[in-house]
Order: sequence, then C-alpha cells, then structure tokens
Amino acid sequence: MKQVFTALFILSGLTALGQQTRTTEKLVPYVKPIIGTQRMGHTYPGATVPFGMVQLSPETDTVGYELNGKYNPDVYKYCAGYQYDDHTIVGFSHTHFSGTGHSDLGDFLIMPTVGTLKLNPGKADQPHSGYRSAFSHQREVSEANYYKVKLDDYNIEAELTTSTRVGFHQYTFPKSDQAHIILDMTSGIYNYPDKNVWTYLHVINDTLVTGYRQTNGWAKNRVLYFALKFSKPFMMHGFRNESKREVYRGFWGKFNQSKNFPEIAGPQIKAWFDFNTTEGEQIKVKMALSPVSMDGALRNMQAEVPGWNFNQVKAAGQQQWESELHKVVIQSGSREQKENFYTAMYHALINPTTYMDVDGQYKGLDQNVHQADHFTNYTTFSLWDTYRALHPLFNIVDPLRNTDMIKSMLLHYEQSPEHMLPVWSNSGNENWCMSGYHSVAVIADAVVKGNANFDVNEALEACVNTARHRDYEGIGLYMDKGYVPDEKSGVSVSNTLEYAFDDWAIAQMAQKLGRTDIYNEFIKRSENYKNVYDPNVGFMRPKLSDGTFRKSFDPLTTINQGFIEGNSWNYTLFVPQDPASLIKLMGGNQRVIRYLDSLFTMHLPDKFFAETEDITRDGIIGNYVHGNEPSHHVAYLYNWTNQPWKTQERVRMILPKMYKPTPDGLGGNDDTGQMSAWYIFSSLGFYPVAPGSEQYALGSPAVNGATIQLPAGKTLTITTKNQGPKNVYVQKVLLNGQPLNRLYITHSEIMQGGKLTFYMSGKHN
Amino acid sequence: MKQVFTALFILSGLTALGQQTRTTEKLVPYVKPIIGTQRMGHTYPGATVPFGMVQLSPETDTVGYELNGKYNPDVYKYCAGYQYDDHTIVGFSHTHFSGTGHSDLGDFLIMPTVGTLKLNPGKADQPHSGYRSAFSHQREVSEANYYKVKLDDYNIEAELTTSTRVGFHQYTFPKSDQAHIILDMTSGIYNYPDKNVWTYLHVINDTLVTGYRQTNGWAKNRVLYFALKFSKPFMMHGFRNESKREVYRGFWGKFNQSKNFPEIAGPQIKAWFDFNTTEGEQIKVKMALSPVSMDGALRNMQAEVPGWNFNQVKAAGQQQWESELHKVVIQSGSREQKENFYTAMYHALINPTTYMDVDGQYKGLDQNVHQADHFTNYTTFSLWDTYRALHPLFNIVDPLRNTDMIKSMLLHYEQSPEHMLPVWSNSGNENWCMSGYHSVAVIADAVVKGNANFDVNEALEACVNTARHRDYEGIGLYMDKGYVPDEKSGVSVSNTLEYAFDDWAIAQMAQKLGRTDIYNEFIKRSENYKNVYDPNVGFMRPKLSDGTFRKSFDPLTTINQGFIEGNSWNYTLFVPQDPASLIKLMGGNQRVIRYLDSLFTMHLPDKFFAETEDITRDGIIGNYVHGNEPSHHVAYLYNWTNQPWKTQERVRMILPKMYKPTPDGLGGNDDTGQMSAWYIFSSLGFYPVAPGSEQYALGSPAVNGATIQLPAGKTLTITTKNQGPKNVYVQKVLLNGQPLNRLYITHSEIMQGGKLTFYMSGKHN
Repeated sequence: MKQVFTALFILSGLTALGQQTRTTEKLVPYVKPIIGTQRMGHTYPGATVPFGMVQLSPETDTVGYELNGKYNPDVYKYCAGYQYDDHTIVGFSHTHFSGTGHSDLGDFLIMPTVGTLKLNPGKADQPHSGYRSAFSHQREVSEANYYKVKLDDYNIEAELTTSTRVGFHQYTFPKSDQAHIILDMTSGIYNYPDKNVWTYLHVINDTLVTGYRQTNGWAKNRVLYFALKFSKPFMMHGFRNESKREVYRGFWGKFNQSKNFPEIAGPQIKAWFDFNTTEGEQIKVKMALSPVSMDGALRNMQAEVPGWNFNQVKAAGQQQWESELHKVVIQSGSREQKENFYTAMYHALINPTTYMDVDGQYKGLDQNVHQADHFTNYTTFSLWDTYRALHPLFNIVDPLRNTDMIKSMLLHYEQSPEHMLPVWSNSGNENWCMSGYHSVAVIADAVVKGNANFDVNEALEACVNTARHRDYEGIGLYMDKGYVPDEKSGVSVSNTLEYAFDDWAIAQMAQKLGRTDIYNEFIKRSENYKNVYDPNVGFMRPKLSDGTFRKSFDPLTTINQGFIEGNSWNYTLFVPQDPASLIKLMGGNQRVIRYLDSLFTMHLPDKFFAETEDITRDGIIGNYVHGNEPSHHVAYLYNWTNQPWKTQERVRMILPKMYKPTPDGLGGNDDTGQMSAWYIFSSLGFYPVAPGSEQYALGSPAVNGATIQLPAGKTLTITTKNQGPKNVYVQKVLLNGQPLNRLYITHSEIMQGGKLTFYMSGKHN
Repeated sequence: MKQVFTALFILSGLTALGQQTRTTEKLVPYVKPIIGTQRMGHTYPGATVPFGMVQLSPETDTVGYELNGKYNPDVYKYCAGYQYDDHTIVGFSHTHFSGTGHSDLGDFLIMPTVGTLKLNPGKADQPHSGYRSAFSHQREVSEANYYKVKLDDYNIEAELTTSTRVGFHQYTFPKSDQAHIILDMTSGIYNYPDKNVWTYLHVINDTLVTGYRQTNGWAKNRVLYFALKFSKPFMMHGFRNESKREVYRGFWGKFNQSKNFPEIAGPQIKAWFDFNTTEGEQIKVKMALSPVSMDGALRNMQAEVPGWNFNQVKAAGQQQWESELHKVVIQSGSREQKENFYTAMYHALINPTTYMDVDGQYKGLDQNVHQADHFTNYTTFSLWDTYRALHPLFNIVDPLRNTDMIKSMLLHYEQSPEHMLPVWSNSGNENWCMSGYHSVAVIADAVVKGNANFDVNEALEACVNTARHRDYEGIGLYMDKGYVPDEKSGVSVSNTLEYAFDDWAIAQMAQKLGRTDIYNEFIKRSENYKNVYDPNVGFMRPKLSDGTFRKSFDPLTTINQGFIEGNSWNYTLFVPQDPASLIKLMGGNQRVIRYLDSLFTMHLPDKFFAETEDITRDGIIGNYVHGNEPSHHVAYLYNWTNQPWKTQERVRMILPKMYKPTPDGLGGNDDTGQMSAWYIFSSLGFYPVAPGSEQYALGSPAVNGATIQLPAGKTLTITTKNQGPKNVYVQKVLLNGQPLNRLYITHSEIMQGGKLTFYMSGKHN
C-alpha cells in the first residue's frame, strides 16, 4: 500500500537519516522477524531496536550444552533461544544473538505465571511440569520491536518492546490471587552447569530490583548488570539459590530470609515476585541492562524509558526501524519480495550491538571501564561473516556508524592482551571463532572507500600487527613458508586462503595511505593462495610442512580436509582479491566456467551434505553452499569469465531459492546479518566481491527499482526496464544516462548518487 | 634513648599531626609487630602503614577451612596467616586482618624460589614438598612497615614494606639460572575449595601484570584488583589453572598457551615468572591493590610508589608511624612498657583500613563504584570490639579520622540492602558478626563529644532505623517484650544487654540533638537489661517468650546459655550505661563488691575454660575474661562502689598480666586493636566505660607520665607523683593544679589540654 506523503508518518529523529525520506509507505509492516526461526536460520522473533543492547525474545527451550556429561547436539538448535516448531515458551530473556551458529547470552529470563508457584522450567513433553507455558502461533505477533504471545497455560498475554538498553514487558493477567513474575538467573543459552560464575540480586524496594550475572561462556569474562522496575508494587518476593556455592552463611541466621529478604548472591539464583491481579490487569516490567554497573543500568533506564507508556516505547522503536528501513526503499510488485527485503534489512541492522551506557561508559576487553570519546562502542562482531557484505552495506547506508564500529575494533585492539584486532567479539570479550583476521578487511574497505573517520595510521598499524602475530593460528609458518602447513592447523587451507585475502586488503589500505613498504610486503603475501593450489587435481589442497600435498584428500568432504564451513570444491574459488589470476591458475576461462557450472548443478551425495555445518538441505544448490559464507562471492565470479550472464542467472536463481518470507525461509544461519546483506546487495544488482576494493560486481537486480539514501542528502535511484521473473539477464546498464561499459560500479559512483538503470531481458547478451 | 631535637628526625607530612612534636625520641624502634603472633593474639609480623589497604605479611601456613569435608579447627590459628611456632613460610600475601577471631583475605600470595619450579605450597612436616621454605626467627626482622626474613631453602632474603595501597617486596637472590617468582592466586586465609569465585591475570608486558581475585568468603561479594610490577623483566612466564571451571576453550587451541600467553581466567590460577639472577641480585616487586579496578590499582601504584627505592618507601611509612606514635608519648623507665605501649598504639592504628583508590573511587556495599566526597572511605569495622575503646581513642588522638570512619559507616548504611549501619564490615561487605548494633555507640560517642563533622540528623536517623530493624536478631520481639526471648536467639541475653546499651547511646545522642521523642523512646529501651536479670539467682539469665526464665542455666558456662564470648558471670555486669542502677538491681554496694572480687579470684574449672572462645588460658584471671571484650569495663565498676581503689588495683594487675612484649604476649585476639586500645587508656589512667558519655572512669596510670597530642596544637600532659610498681593506688588527682574530686574526667577536660597529675601511693585511701 503506497500513500501520498502525509503528516501521519513522522520519521524518528533518533537516527541520522540526514534528509527527508522520499516515500511515505510504512515499511515496518513488511518486517517479519519470524523469518529464519525455523530450523537453521537461528534468528529470533522478539523485540529489538537497530543495533540494540537489548534483544528481548522468548525462549522456547533452554537446552543445556551438556546432557549426561556429554555435548548435547540439541543445544545448537537453540542458538537464538527459539525454535518455531516448539509448542511451549519458557520465558522472555533480554539478550540474543541473531543468526549465529554458536551461542551464549539469554540473560535474565522473566516469566509471568498464575497459580501454584513453579521455579523450574519443566519439560516440553510434560505439560505443567514447570513454569513454561503452551503457546500457539495463532496467538503470536512478531514485528520489528514488538512481540506478543498468549501464554495459554496461564491465560496471560505477554507483550514485549525495547529501547536500545531497556526491555519493556507488558503482561495482561487474569484475575488471580496467585500471580507471579519469575526472574530465573540460572537460565541461559548454551548453558552449562558452571557457566554462571556468580549472580547477585538486590531488592531496593517493592518495585525496583538490581543485580548482575557473571558468566564464563563463549565470552570468557562477562558481567551483565541490570535494573528491573515493576509498574505495580509486589506484595512479597522470594529467592532460591540452587547451588551450594554460597559458602559463608555463618551469621545469616540473624535474618529470616525465607521471604522479602533484600539481597542474595550465589551462582544459581531464582527470584519470584507475587501479586494479586484483577481480570485484565496489566503489570509492566522494565529491565535496563548495562555492561558496567547496576548504577549504569539505572541511569540507562532513566534516560531511555523513564515512564510506563508501552505503546510509546514500541512506537519510538518502530520509528527507528522506519528510519533505518527507509535507507533502501525498493519498488516491487510482490509483497513476498518486500517482506524478504525489509526483513533482510532488519536482520542486517541488528548487529554489531551497542555496548556502552548512556553516559559513554563501557567495559573494555581489558576488563577496565572506559569512557567512550564521542563515539558509540559496539560488540558482537562476527567478522568472518560480516566483513563480506554487511560492513560494506554499512559503508553505503550508514558510513558514520561503520566508523564507530571500526573505532570500537581499534579500541578492542588496544585493550587486547594478545594485541589483536577482533576475530569474534562477544560482550566485549574475544572468542577467536573462525579463521582469518577479517577485521583488517573491514578497516581497509572503509579506508579505500574514503570512509575513514578514525586514525588511519593507527588503524594500519593495528592491521599489520594483527597480520604479523606469529603465534596465532599458524601465521608464523604462513609468513615463513607462504602457507599454513596441514600439521599446524586442522583448517590450514582456509587459513591460508583467508590470510591471503586479508593481506591483499591490508595492501590496498597501505597503498591508499602511501605506505609502499607495507604494500609490498602484503601484496606479496596476498598471492599465497597459489601455494595451496594443487594443479594436478585442480583444487586447493592441504600442504604439509615439507612442501608436499597431503595424500589423503577429498574435495567434497568438509571435515578434516583443511577447511572450515566449506569443502575444497567451494573454497578453491576463494580468491576474491584476484579472480582473474585464479582463473589463469585453474586453467583458464573455459575450465573455470565448467567448474562453476558443475558446482551449481552437480549432485552432492547425502553423506557430504550431512557434514556441512550450519545449513539446511535447502541451503545447498548442487554443491554450492549458500548457507555458509565462503561461497558468497562465487556466483559473481562468472563476471571474470566470458559468460558474465551466468552471474545474472545464478544470482536470480539463488535469491528466491535461499530467501523466503517464511519461518523456514533461511537456508542457513543468518550469521548476524551477513546472509541478509548478501540478499540486499544482490537484490539491488551489485555485490562487493572483494571488500577493500572500490568495485562492486554487477549482477542482476531482482527488484523493480530502489532508492538508496546516501549521506549529505544524496540518493542513488536504481531503476529497471523490462523487469520480470524470467528477465534475469542484463542487456545494458546506464549510470546517469551514460552506458556503463563494464561489469562493475565503483563506490564513488554510488556515493555521488544519481540514477542507475538496468535494462533487463529474458535472453542473455 | 632520648635526643635533643635535631633536623635528623623529620616528621612525615603525610598525616595530620597538626603541630611539632615535643619529643625527638624515635618511637618506631619500640614497635614489635611480633607481639601477639604466638597462639591467640592473631596479629601478623608483616609490613603496613597506619590504616593501610595493604598489610603485606608472611603466611606460615595456608590451612583450609575444611579438612576431609569437615571444619578444620586448625584454620582458626591462621586468622592472620602467621603462627610464631611454625618453621616454614609459604609466601607473602597482601591483605591480613589484625587480631580477629574469624578471618578472610590473604590475597595474592607471592613466593620467590630458585631451582626446580614447584607450584604447590607443600606440607610443613615434609621439607621440600612444595614451594614453602624453612625460616628461623634468628634471621627474621619485624618492624613497623618493615619485615625481613631469610628463606633458608632458597638462600633468598625477602624484605617487605608498604605504602597505603602498595606492597613492596625486595628479594635478594643467590646466583641462579632457575629463579622464580610465584604468584599463587589460589592461596588465601580461611580458604575453602570454592571460595575463589573467579580470578584473572593479564600480562601486559614483561614487567607488568594486572588481575583480580573475586571471593565468596567472610565477605560475600568481594573483588580485589591488583597491578604487579617487576624491577627486572622476566624471561618467561607460565600459568596453571587448577580448576576445570574454565569451560569454554573451543578456540583456544589457536594459540600456544604453554608459555608466555598474556592472559588467563578461571577460579584457581597460579602463575610463575622466571629470571636468571647473579649472586646477590635484587629483584623488586611492587603490588598495588584497588577495590575498584585494575586501572585503579595502576593509578594507585603510580601515585604512591612510582619508583624503585625500597628504603625510601620503608622510611616514608616508618615516618608515618612516628607521626602516629607521637600522638601519645609516654614516660617510662621500662623498655618493656614502651614496647607494650607503642606496639599497642601500632596495633590500634591499623584498623579500620583504607578502602578507596587515590582518586577517591571505592566499591560500595551496594556493589556500585562511588566517588568519595572529600573524605577517606574505610572498611574492616569490627564494631562489637572497637566501639568500646578504639573509636573513643580515635576521638581523642585523631578525631577527624574518626569522623571519616563514621562517614564511611553512614554510606555503608545508605548502600546497605538491609538498611542497617555496619555490624562487621569486611572489604565493603557485611558479615553480621557478633551481637548488637554498636555502630550507634561509635556515632553517639562522637556526637556527644562534639566531634560531629558529619550530618548528625542523618546519622541519628541511621541509628534509629538500625535499632528499629524488627527483622534483625530478635529486635522486633525485643521492642515488643523488652527482651529477646531465648527461643528467638541462641545469644538472647547478650543481645538484650547490648541492645540496651546501644539504645542508651542513641538516647544520649538524641538528647544532645534536642530530639526528645527519640530520647524518650530509647532511654526507656536502655533499661531493658532489667528484664533479663533474675533476682532469684542474681544473674542475667535467658528468658522465654512466656516471660519465665529458662530452667536450664549455668552462669559459668558460655555455650548455649544465651551469651556470646562470655558467661553470665561476666555478662551480668554488662550495664556500662548505668552501673549505679545495676548495683542497686544486684543488691547493693557490698554484694556487688563481693561479686566483683569473686569474679577476679574464683577458680574456674578447666571445663569452663575450654569453652571460652578466642583466648589463651592466660587470658583469664579467675573467672574474669580479659581476652574477650564484654568484660573490658568490668575492672572500672568498682568506681561505682565504695571501694574504687579496687579498680586501681585490678587495672594495674591486669596490665602486666595480659600484655607482654613477647610473641605470646597477648592473652586473646587483639580484635583489630580493641585489646590494645584498652591497654593504652588503662596505662594512661582513664577508660571510656560507656562510649556515648562524656566521662572516662579514672583508673591507675601505669606510665610515669605521658603527653597526648590534641587537635589545634593542644596537649594533655599526664604526670605521676610517687609512681612505682607497687604504688598502684591513686591518692589524689589534680587537673591543672585543681583537685579533681570525682572518679572521672570528661572529654572536654581532656580536649582542652593541660596537666593531669596523679598522686600515687602503695596504700589505698
């Protein structure tokens, strides 16, 4: 539904949109956070604002990392706490990763109940065995920054919304003289028995509680503080410590602690708050978070959500989303496409997450409290994923935010005991997840594209020092031998290829900054991919320390072949920095076309599929694994052959196949927005094959048209001629009316704004 | 040795002495920190400055709280970490309580060794079984702010000194290519397996390490941060985590962590730092502490001890002690008496301890970081002990410091979840140790004495609210019935008596502030002691809820008789607020004299002695238990009879019997200075029987004379005529030449300064 511009729609002033939007259509209604909540998407349906510290969402189960002392494979399903096929909700917690394949968080689970107090979640297959409640999708609403569900066991309607640092619950109770709100500090995602290091609760008065949870999980040293406020005084409260680890109790007998005692500490704490409710009575709950202190959480609450108007908070957050979504407005005749597109935008603009208090204080990687100097500090950097398309997307639609993210990364480097840029930053900690040192690609991409609102020389030094960290994952041997030997690392080929790409990015940055010495060192390193290519088999292949290739080798297998989240068939193509040379290395144009064609069309036996991590069966097309990131540039490689129309064909084939506006619509983990960013770029007709380059490879736009809001009030308008589901081929491209006689568009061209016109056809050129 | 005033002795400017001192004699040489280190004194021989955050002292054993799953009674011996009879030293840790009967602390144990690296302390009876070393008192020096010992197993000389927040170690090594400095974060006093909640180490470079230790011990929620600096770069370092609780290690294989890895976290961490040393080479180590952050510890080090001059730091600290000791300078012909006196001053001026960083930041009871507003924040308030004489001593010799302590107590109240003034504050936590709410006596004493540099109305409110806290230790029933019923509390009579005293103190304060309503309420409460006096047996006695006295009762027994650290024989006299009424209640002058005489002279059967806590056999005279505090006013009660000369006799008998300048010289726990404060007052000839009153009961001075430095340059000079060991009786007292025809002196009289002359005699009046 389009509308003429009316005063009814007022853009939020909270984000730096920079200019009036050109459309009045509300875009939030197209966002379906439920997309990806079934199976492997690992998204969540709950409420958040863009880049919020709080992600307030239901847990449908709280599976532990261990079952009977062993790894419990089911824990993986619950990376985001919610699985669409489940029938019960355990409660609502305040922190969630969006789309990850490992997890953490799930802090401060809150559950409203009535009747007999139960303090354990119970089991999904045993109704009424605990505080969990049945629910159904019929009585569930999931919007950007709004979630509503009926908790059937209790006849309670739960509504959730958020501001950046505050989760806001609104519970509509039935009449009850046994209404409870449970705060379960033992609950968590990817939980193990000892993951809670310590927790603390302080009941300040009958509407205000503060506390913290300290965990040793995927974030090694993590403390999250909260302030919890009830709209109605509770009649009484109680605690249970389920651990024996509160050792010293000698003098605690001095108080009656059985009820209404104001504090408790220990690793495994649950609390409950009791109310009488009238029919339909609403009890509202605000929980503010802080990575710094309980006082900080209180200040965050006071600054962001001082009052009790749920709808106002919901509307303010949705207006933030409108602002963000309006940065790329598409024309499409299909509601499905709009849902896919704006949900992709939504999922892309959740991470990295804000990690500082309203007063600028944040906890650094060195575990000291720091004051942010005129920037916003972020965490949740899943960089192996997001350097590819998500940060390049920010460079276009939100360049200042991207430089704040880079500032956060540079401070991470400064505070890092290992003196390295982030690999995977979680809650201001480092978990070293995945291969490469892709921070450097994010930084180089920003520098090369002229979006360098940070100290570029310090940044270059951080990149170089990270890339020269000999003790990390075979870098020393890589520097000495030109590859990571198979004996040194189980993912030696992935490491070699990704280091080589990252090194190329450093070289580009050095060149731009006039540092020829560094350019020379790293442009040489960027060719190291050649050292793991075995021309005899035509694949990248693990190489031993003695310079020979490993004998045992299967290019279809993922496990124990020297790769991570990809087999050699896919990873062999991972030279995004120089596809032309790769093609030469692989035997030239025709051989690579055949290779690519085979990749997309071959039959992958089930046994190989079973090994492929983090994706559903639908996440694979032939042997092309879209659900994992190493192949995200692959469809665009045809551009470097003499059959670029196959890029157009493949992209238009992948888009609808891998992205559907349904709960099971994502073929693999969304990976904190990288999968969504691929969708956004590819739908618009171009893609950043090699971040660190000014160039975006042209593909085939799937939208009818689009307007991209650029800084300083500029816009890039994309239009298509003769667009249609079968007209996937691009006959010509005009930039501001002039033919673009090449297969790429540059960043400067995009950022100058103007008009990009694709002429589509059912036949390739 | 007295000297004329020379420039050689320059008083430190670090304390607020307020004027030139009148003596040039160095007093530090009389301080023997070793006094009380044998048996029950629970003092430590290590280094500290007055009221220091750091108390750097050797541990001669690290006995755990549990042995084979049960309470280990030996842990009690090691409340201060050191027992004089031991023959080995385990290492040097940075925090110790002085004289307590329960314990905690022992943070950051450091031990230098040479030869094969050992990471466990080993056992005392198995030489070379661990890193501990043999030592002997012949090669040990213990002074105020200086400790030296030869570690015989390693031929290492260890020297220790401190500033307020920094411990400074100086180790003289033999030649070795295997010299180690071990940092054992698992070590602690009153340790249990799970007491360490979490620890962290960050090796910033080859001379600088930061970290923290989070414990759940006598302080429930405690984190102590440090910064550790070496004078010489270590060649390598290593870590060991002795717990399985560092759960998530998934990606740590990316680094070689076996040596020189820069960080580690987990509950049970040990670290070692390796050096080559030449013969006689000194390696110096500075460890700064902070209750706030690692950054705070670094700032503390930079501010207090930026350089490496050990002797300068030692001298500065000893000059602080000179300043403090010069506040009361005695004349005595006996070196023993001077050692007793100045060591008592030393032990009295260690606690409470500084608990904030140099920038004024401190961690509050609410676990938030606060900024001290122009005062010094203190912790380690053992108030059941120290309200009696230690805080009254501060009111005379250091009134501004006493008001800073009261400000700290008032902020404790503000930050307390239970809204109570401190009972026993340890590391900014509350452990609720012992009975009563004696903060109120400290505050009332300061107010009544006109030393009220704080908001007196807020203070009164805090006192009243604490005393009306119905949920605490039977206060509700005490308010309703006038006594704590025996069913409610195992120490119901102690509670009743101590509440009644504290209530009287509140009443005095209220009277001074013109709050008649509060005065009336609390002066009435102060008579509640009468409700637990059983005239049929002539003792204070547990009373049941129904108003009848408990049948089973033995006034000689301490355990399960309604008392704590005292039997009814002693506690029956605990009405310091109104001895005259007590005497009337007990049957009048002659009966009470007989009672007191019996107390001091009766034979206490061994079985009763065995039950008496916290003291040695020497700590009892007859049935009078000087080693515990409830009797500290008892010798002065004769002043309210017609035989006040017996006060003089008893005091002069107790002084040499209970205080000797030897390791076993203290008859009971020094209790953070209360035992020492009794010694100081009593040696000077007066004692604050009822803090909250302006009056000090006169006793019999044991010194030949003394000069007390008072604020604003005034002094009180005490002289004696005809003093001698047998001339214990006071014939007359002149104040500024005028006869003092009463048995007390007032605070105003003391603070005005002047001359107090005691005329002594071998016969009583």
